[in-house]
Amino acid sequence: MKLKVATSGAWLPHALAHFDEVLVDHAHCEKKAAANALSLLQAYPEVPGLPAQMARLAREESAHLARVLQVMEARGLALGRDGGDPYAQGLQRLLRHGAKERQLDRFLVAGLIEARSCERLELLARGLEDKALARFYAELAQSEDGHTTLFERLAREVADEATVATRLEHLLTREAELIEGLPLRAAVH
Amino acid sequence: MKLKVATSGAWLPHALAHFDEVLVDHAHCEKKAAANALSLLQAYPEVPGLPAQMARLAREESAHLARVLQVMEARGLALGRDGGDPYAQGLQRLLRHGAKERQLDRFLVAGLIEARSCERLELLARGLEDKALARFYAELAQSEDGHTTLFERLAREVADEATVATRLEHLLTREAELIEGLPLRAAVH
Repeated sequence: MKLKVATSGAWLPHALAHFDEVLVDHAHCEKKAAANALSLLQAYPEVPGLPAQMARLAREESAHLARVLQVMEARGLALGRDGGDPYAQGLQRLLRHGAKERQLDRFLVAGLIEARSCERLELLARGLEDKALARFYAELAQSEDGHTTLFERLAREVADEATVATRLEHLLTREAELIEGLPLRAAVH
Repeated sequence: MKLKVATSGAWLPHALAHFDEVLVDHAHCEKKAAANALSLLQAYPEVPGLPAQMARLAREESAHLARVLQVMEARGLALGRDGGDPYAQGLQRLLRHGAKERQLDRFLVAGLIEARSCERLELLARGLEDKALARFYAELAQSEDGHTTLFERLAREVADEATVATRLEHLLTREAELIEGLPLRAAVH
C-alpha cells in the first residue's frame, strides 16, 4: 500500500529537537504493535497462516520494544504512562462493526499504521546524527515495511481482491485526512 | 515460591494420551503469558525494572508460542478458538480490588501460573518418548522457572517482605485447593 500524503516537512526537525519524547512514544507504539498481534491471533486463529505470522510479529515487536527501552535507559528516560495516540485512535474509529468487515478493516488499519511508522522511522534514520541510532532506526523501518506487506496478504486471505482494493483506497484517503488534520507531535505518529 | 501440592499422578498419562490437545492448550497459554507481560507493562510502567523485564518476557513467550505453533503445524494441528483456562480464571478471581493489592496479586498470580506450568512442562519433558519434543519441553520448563523468580522479585519491589510472604502463603493455599478441585484436563493446567 502506498500512503497518499507524505509526512509534513515540519515533522522531522520537531521530532529531532524533542527526540527523547519521540523515543518514549516509540516504545509505546512497539508495545501496542506487539499487543495487537496477539489480539489478532486471539480473535482470528482460523485465518490461514495468521497464528504463526502473528506469533512471530509479536516476538519481533517485543524485541524492538526491549531495544528501544535499552536506548531510553542509556539516556536516563523512564517509560511512564501511555498518553494514547490520537492517530491510532482516529484509525480505530474507522473500523466497521460487522464481523467480516471489522476483520478486514483490522488488517488494513494495522498495515496502514505500519506503513506510516515505516515512513517516519526512515525519516528519523536519515535525520539522526548519532550513527548507531540512525542504523537502529533504518533497521526498524525496514522491518515495519515487511509488516505492511504481511497485513495486506492477510486482508487478501479474508476478502476478494476488489473488496480489498476498494476498502484500502477508502482507508488510505481517511488516513491522509487524519495525518494532515492532527497537530504536530514529537511522536512516531 | 514452592507449590503446596504436586500435580496428580493421573495427569501425565492423561496428557500424554491426548498430547495433541495439550499442545493446542499450551499454545494458548504462551499467548496469554505474552499478552499478560504486555498488559503488566501497560499497567505498571513505573515499577523499577518492570518495562524492560516485561518486554523481554513478551519476546520470550511469543518465541515459545511460535515454536509450539511450528510443532503443531508439523502434526497438522490448527490452533482454533481459545476455550479458556479454568485454572487461570480461578486464580484471576483471587485478585483483590485496591490498586496496590491488585498490583501485588497480579505479580504473585503470574508467578504461581509460571510455577505450575514449569512443574507440568517438566513432567511432559520426562514423559514424552519423542526425544526432540522432550528436549523442547525441558528447555521451556527451565525458562518458566526463571519467570517465577522474576515475578517474585517484582512483588518485592512493590510490597515489603512480610506483606509478600503473607499474601503468597494465602495464594499458594488457594492455588493448591484450585488445582485439586479441578477435573483432569488434557491441558497444561
